[in-house]
Amino acid sequence: MKTAILTVGTEILFGQVVNTNAAYLSKNLQDLGHDVMYHYTVGDNPGRLRDLLEIVYRDCDLVLTTGGLGPTEDDLTKEVISGFFGEKLVEYPDQLEILKNHFRSSRYTWTDNNRKQAWFPEHNCTVLPNFHGSAPGFMIEKDGRIIISMPGPPREMTEMFELQVRPILESKREHYICYKILRTIGLGESRMETVLLPLIDGQTDPTIATYAKEGECSLRITSERDTLEEAEAATNEMIGKVRDLIGEYIYSYDDEDLATVVGRKLLEDHITISCAESCTGGGFAKALTDIPGISAVFDRGIVTYSYKAKEEELGVSPDTLEKYTAESPEVAKEMAEGLSKISGSDLNIAVTGVAGPDDMSPEKPAGLAYIGLTYKGETRVTEIRIKSRGRNWNREYFILRMFNEVYQAVK
Amino acid sequence: MKTAILTVGTEILFGQVVNTNAAYLSKNLQDLGHDVMYHYTVGDNPGRLRDLLEIVYRDCDLVLTTGGLGPTEDDLTKEVISGFFGEKLVEYPDQLEILKNHFRSSRYTWTDNNRKQAWFPEHNCTVLPNFHGSAPGFMIEKDGRIIISMPGPPREMTEMFELQVRPILESKREHYICYKILRTIGLGESRMETVLLPLIDGQTDPTIATYAKEGECSLRITSERDTLEEAEAATNEMIGKVRDLIGEYIYSYDDEDLATVVGRKLLEDHITISCAESCTGGGFAKALTDIPGISAVFDRGIVTYSYKAKEEELGVSPDTLEKYTAESPEVAKEMAEGLSKISGSDLNIAVTGVAGPDDMSPEKPAGLAYIGLTYKGETRVTEIRIKSRGRNWNREYFILRMFNEVYQAVK
Repeated sequence: MKTAILTVGTEILFGQVVNTNAAYLSKNLQDLGHDVMYHYTVGDNPGRLRDLLEIVYRDCDLVLTTGGLGPTEDDLTKEVISGFFGEKLVEYPDQLEILKNHFRSSRYTWTDNNRKQAWFPEHNCTVLPNFHGSAPGFMIEKDGRIIISMPGPPREMTEMFELQVRPILESKREHYICYKILRTIGLGESRMETVLLPLIDGQTDPTIATYAKEGECSLRITSERDTLEEAEAATNEMIGKVRDLIGEYIYSYDDEDLATVVGRKLLEDHITISCAESCTGGGFAKALTDIPGISAVFDRGIVTYSYKAKEEELGVSPDTLEKYTAESPEVAKEMAEGLSKISGSDLNIAVTGVAGPDDMSPEKPAGLAYIGLTYKGETRVTEIRIKSRGRNWNREYFILRMFNEVYQAVK
Repeated sequence: MKTAILTVGTEILFGQVVNTNAAYLSKNLQDLGHDVMYHYTVGDNPGRLRDLLEIVYRDCDLVLTTGGLGPTEDDLTKEVISGFFGEKLVEYPDQLEILKNHFRSSRYTWTDNNRKQAWFPEHNCTVLPNFHGSAPGFMIEKDGRIIISMPGPPREMTEMFELQVRPILESKREHYICYKILRTIGLGESRMETVLLPLIDGQTDPTIATYAKEGECSLRITSERDTLEEAEAATNEMIGKVRDLIGEYIYSYDDEDLATVVGRKLLEDHITISCAESCTGGGFAKALTDIPGISAVFDRGIVTYSYKAKEEELGVSPDTLEKYTAESPEVAKEMAEGLSKISGSDLNIAVTGVAGPDDMSPEKPAGLAYIGLTYKGETRVTEIRIKSRGRNWNREYFILRMFNEVYQAVK
């Protein structure tokens, strides 16, 4: 169905909150085969909200709204929508009971202004229960038009969508979409486009879209057909063609990040790992331990920020530090090898470099780092040299490259 | 001025990208004293874009657009806007020269379809240079209506806004807004609202808004007046009243996060610090080393994931681990004290617990953690026990509480 997403909320117009609800709903509607034509955001203003409804139903038949369902006087979404559909709001006794129970079982005190949360359009209305908050959602279906109205807090909205709205939209789908996101590393976006040009050019279904982010490059392959089977077959056929051209650079066929792919590989092959970090300050260990169950292979991580810590914790030689400074391939090598002796892990990875924002010296600019990796008795040191894009960006990029080093070693 | 923000981009309607541009522009427009009435997002569809312009100029006099300025056939924003303002697009020779230079100095090859990026409305138009990409922005001011059109990539858009659009909007401001965000810890949102009720109730300017996130609670105090001085004075007066009521819980009067406040305090007082982490996996060290210059006081961080690592790196007794398990106050204490001996830092903090998603046992549920902190010869262990909200949330919360422990010790 042709769809509009309507967000009600002053906090979004103030820029205090990013509208993640609209992105979440868009993605899911897309997957369910509905076309999203518009996003709109308005404040709690009945006149403007009504005008927007007039406009969107000119070319949409489904409207999803979030926000504005609370108990305060500002919250007028329900009133406006009912009026627009020519329905009167009436109190639903069962909803009043549920609402009062909700207050009894929480720490909030019942006040009579909450009563309006039990009012709904008299006819053509389905109430959508809210398991995480007091404001239920609702759906009106009338004269070929549908509106589904959900609360604004993302936790309440997403659960309501998953449990109650998704089955409704599933039953109304008109076509099927299958898409896969492939992730690559080691191939720039423009190079990837050039190589894939014969597949991209003049292709209407499946479509191939490329996008680059933070040193990686992804590919989205999408097919839209009358049945799911056809869409899947077309997508898979195209994935085969892409694999023939750039297979060696693809690390995930399922939109997983590199840390997840590396973590799974380490767990599957039971390769134990430890890390020593300087400029990334624990970020590699943090990213690795984001993976549940990783404790089966991750032994330890050591963040050696000072020279003293590098010497004491990893046995880096004071002479090496003195002669080459901490941000050197020599120190990266000694860190990895020192860690290897201490941890006894199968794979040991170390990083040292200049996170920035400032350059350390003309020879040691922000964006320079060395990664040492010891595996199967050998140590390999890789130099990273990028144009600095700020401390955080540089650090995230170094961490990504560390995961790539591990990936290349164990894949 | 009454303003609408119009985003052009299919990737946003697909839900692939969250519309951070709209939030960024809203926040800045708000600060510049302009009222944002609407956000709209449409795809690259000339008819719908034109309809929207008709609608927004009914009650807005300023429209900001992002996206749709590229060289491809889909990019029609400029054509539609020119047409709407009754202007013809013509080639600007100076812009063509700049554009060709841009291609010469980058790795891209010039193709003739790029030429249209040098076309702009013939009259009433100001071109806004793009220092990070090929597509310039532009402004049309005609018959009391203004439109400012910027490229979609956030890096290009934000720089164009800061350098070129901000001064224009500054000159058109009609009133002044001053706001401050105060951040607190240790006081729940409902408790805070209750304490501050005498200040909040019936207050029209300055306004006080509270919002809770991830275990913390913030307060936004906003005043809107004819002059900046008046707005600042009113805001500061209200801050004084708030301080009288809840001053002991406020850790920042300038919307800084706790890690930043703690980092600055450590640097100012030159208190050296080291950390030992189990369940947070390096996240505390990572957050601390996000702060530039922290190497002056941060010595080392040790992520001891295995029992072996806890024993070898920190000298935790195997008997203690055996008797109490790793997720115990006893182990947190030994971790902190062991680290203290090794690092010689002034302050040593350790954490051990259950990140989840699964409970370790009925006695050791996800969301349980112990923080040990050794400072000035004393060790204090704090128990954290929260309802688990997923591995990542739990970990971030434990890290926040570690910063709070450090903050309470050194403030």
